[in-house]
Amino acid sequence: MSSTTAAQVIRCKAAVAWEAGKPLVIEEVEVAPPQAMEVRLKILFTSLCHTDVYFWEAKGQTPLFPRIFGHEAGGIGEGVTDLKPGDHVLPVFTGECKECRHCKSEESNMCDLLRINTDRGVMLNDGKSRFSINGQPIYHFVGTSTFSEYTVVHVGCVAKINPAAPLDKVCVLSCGISTGLGATLNVAKPKKGSTVAIFGLGAVGLAAAEGARIAGASRIIGVDLNAKRFDEAKKFGVTEFVNPKDHDKPVQEVIAEMTGGGVDRSVECTGSINAMISAFECVHDGWGVAVLVGVPNKDDAFKTHPMNILNEKTLKGTFFGNFKPRSDLPSVVERYMNKELELEKFITHEVPFSEINKAFEYMLKGDGLRCIIRMDA
Amino acid sequence: MSSTTAAQVIRCKAAVAWEAGKPLVIEEVEVAPPQAMEVRLKILFTSLCHTDVYFWEAKGQTPLFPRIFGHEAGGIGEGVTDLKPGDHVLPVFTGECKECRHCKSEESNMCDLLRINTDRGVMLNDGKSRFSINGQPIYHFVGTSTFSEYTVVHVGCVAKINPAAPLDKVCVLSCGISTGLGATLNVAKPKKGSTVAIFGLGAVGLAAAEGARIAGASRIIGVDLNAKRFDEAKKFGVTEFVNPKDHDKPVQEVIAEMTGGGVDRSVECTGSINAMISAFECVHDGWGVAVLVGVPNKDDAFKTHPMNILNEKTLKGTFFGNFKPRSDLPSVVERYMNKELELEKFITHEVPFSEINKAFEYMLKGDGLRCIIRMDA
Repeated sequence: MSSTTAAQVIRCKAAVAWEAGKPLVIEEVEVAPPQAMEVRLKILFTSLCHTDVYFWEAKGQTPLFPRIFGHEAGGIGEGVTDLKPGDHVLPVFTGECKECRHCKSEESNMCDLLRINTDRGVMLNDGKSRFSINGQPIYHFVGTSTFSEYTVVHVGCVAKINPAAPLDKVCVLSCGISTGLGATLNVAKPKKGSTVAIFGLGAVGLAAAEGARIAGASRIIGVDLNAKRFDEAKKFGVTEFVNPKDHDKPVQEVIAEMTGGGVDRSVECTGSINAMISAFECVHDGWGVAVLVGVPNKDDAFKTHPMNILNEKTLKGTFFGNFKPRSDLPSVVERYMNKELELEKFITHEVPFSEINKAFEYMLKGDGLRCIIRMDA
Repeated sequence: MSSTTAAQVIRCKAAVAWEAGKPLVIEEVEVAPPQAMEVRLKILFTSLCHTDVYFWEAKGQTPLFPRIFGHEAGGIGEGVTDLKPGDHVLPVFTGECKECRHCKSEESNMCDLLRINTDRGVMLNDGKSRFSINGQPIYHFVGTSTFSEYTVVHVGCVAKINPAAPLDKVCVLSCGISTGLGATLNVAKPKKGSTVAIFGLGAVGLAAAEGARIAGASRIIGVDLNAKRFDEAKKFGVTEFVNPKDHDKPVQEVIAEMTGGGVDRSVECTGSINAMISAFECVHDGWGVAVLVGVPNKDDAFKTHPMNILNEKTLKGTFFGNFKPRSDLPSVVERYMNKELELEKFITHEVPFSEINKAFEYMLKGDGLRCIIRMDA
């Protein structure tokens, strides 16, 4: 895109959610030019994640409509600061300002300025939306709103990646897949030959299993209430399965018996409080590390006997797999380019933008893992 | 001691606890020769730790009497396996067999064979006591029973140390001081310049503070319900004090306000469940690490909202400061010899063996930190 169009309003197609739980409507929207520290992106591919569906259903939060959802995507940027026009990018629902204490810490990726905010439907710069239809503002979603041919995001929420990487594959790295992968590789850090339990075999959990496979775990125990997920999980390195429904005793006891006292690492990817507690209690004393990924309900309490902690177990939480979006995502893309990380097996469906509501149907039915939405079709 | 006496029964003085909570009585006891994998030690100095008093009071456990308490001590060994007669040693209440999965793991010190067992009053080898008076067995305590001129311990519970180290000082490294020091240096691992909160300013907490001082922490915030402890704590590097009684809000909120969001590290040394929860919740999101040291009550539940975990905080427990007794204690002694670690300030009283009950009185009154008991006086 030339620098002349960068300052102009763009008219393009976007999938607008007018009401909670109602099918999206493809509308012509106006996308205002980016302001200071913002960049406008042409989205080529986007995918659908549970978080989109959760906020679209608006069962647990204050509804904010009309809104353009979408946050897993691949696109091309206009020029601003360290981005050149034409750069290939992944927009990310959380950001990296590179200036705050979190960004300067080696350990954190929870940027003070650009940390995810699901309640905010406007841009930080002026508190307004860049999307409108006939003057009516349409709200943003987690700073990305990728269900639009063009979107405006804060420059701190854009990772510049290898232009040779196929955007129809690496777009899934914007959220769930990186979250699960990083939970294992960056936080649980299983050693070669270790045993790992994964709670929840959806896309995030399978990405966590993929991380365990890449790390060289010798046993990867998948835990899920849905027995149908077990066959697919084998592709992701899962070697054994435990369905809590098949046992009278708590799943942590079943796992302790299977492993001579507990697994070396566990990763919880369901958000169920009981799974969180089981994931912690199933790790071995002395060295076990449990990592929590799933987002709990507001009123949940994590509860365990403190002796479980004193027995030298470690409990950690992670957000976006501890990846710093701008600093770290390019290297995750390289893992895919080197064929170390297999993304194809996460992509089970593809639909044209005009049929975006089908992606919602697949997810609501629990059919498949990721549905890619082609914006040019 | 010559190898001829090694096989004989020794008659010597020991402080026997005949009943729960009743003053110890100095008696002449018979100490049987060590059996396979055991070593007999001549104890030169011992000190009194809360754990002795806790089991002597027997308020929370099945009483086991008559018994010889004592587990912080320095002594000299008879020859067995890798010990030579005359070696200077610290007996330790927990052991290191060097063969089990825990001993072989770099991360754990919770030896399967020799892990602390407070209920066992006999030796592992034959399930019998080595102490007796006129044929009546006297029970051991945590495998050490150092309130005796001679004792028999498993060889896996003996750390051989630098013979130049003064045993009347380094004897305190057998338990509490190493526990607190290691919790900070081995587990919390604060970086130079970081902020550290210490919950509980008894000997273990002050040793944790000493660890933070050695690590170069810039702020060490001491938390205690007893305001009198604050003056002494300054000697251990504590820079600021918080008494939860002085505040209407939870202490974790007070600490968050003092530190712009939370401390980098916290170490809990009280065993109070509320202090454990506060210690966890007062660390900074993104990178904070909380370490639990204090032993809780049986019915306690650690309870927190899972978002506190997901915000990238880490919760860890430790046992004996994660030191492997035989492998690691010699280097802790060297820290003292190098004047990096200051043990003198922990030693507030000294009594002859004949007045051992005075040490119990000091501890019950909360007077001072460690009372050294000279066995030759």
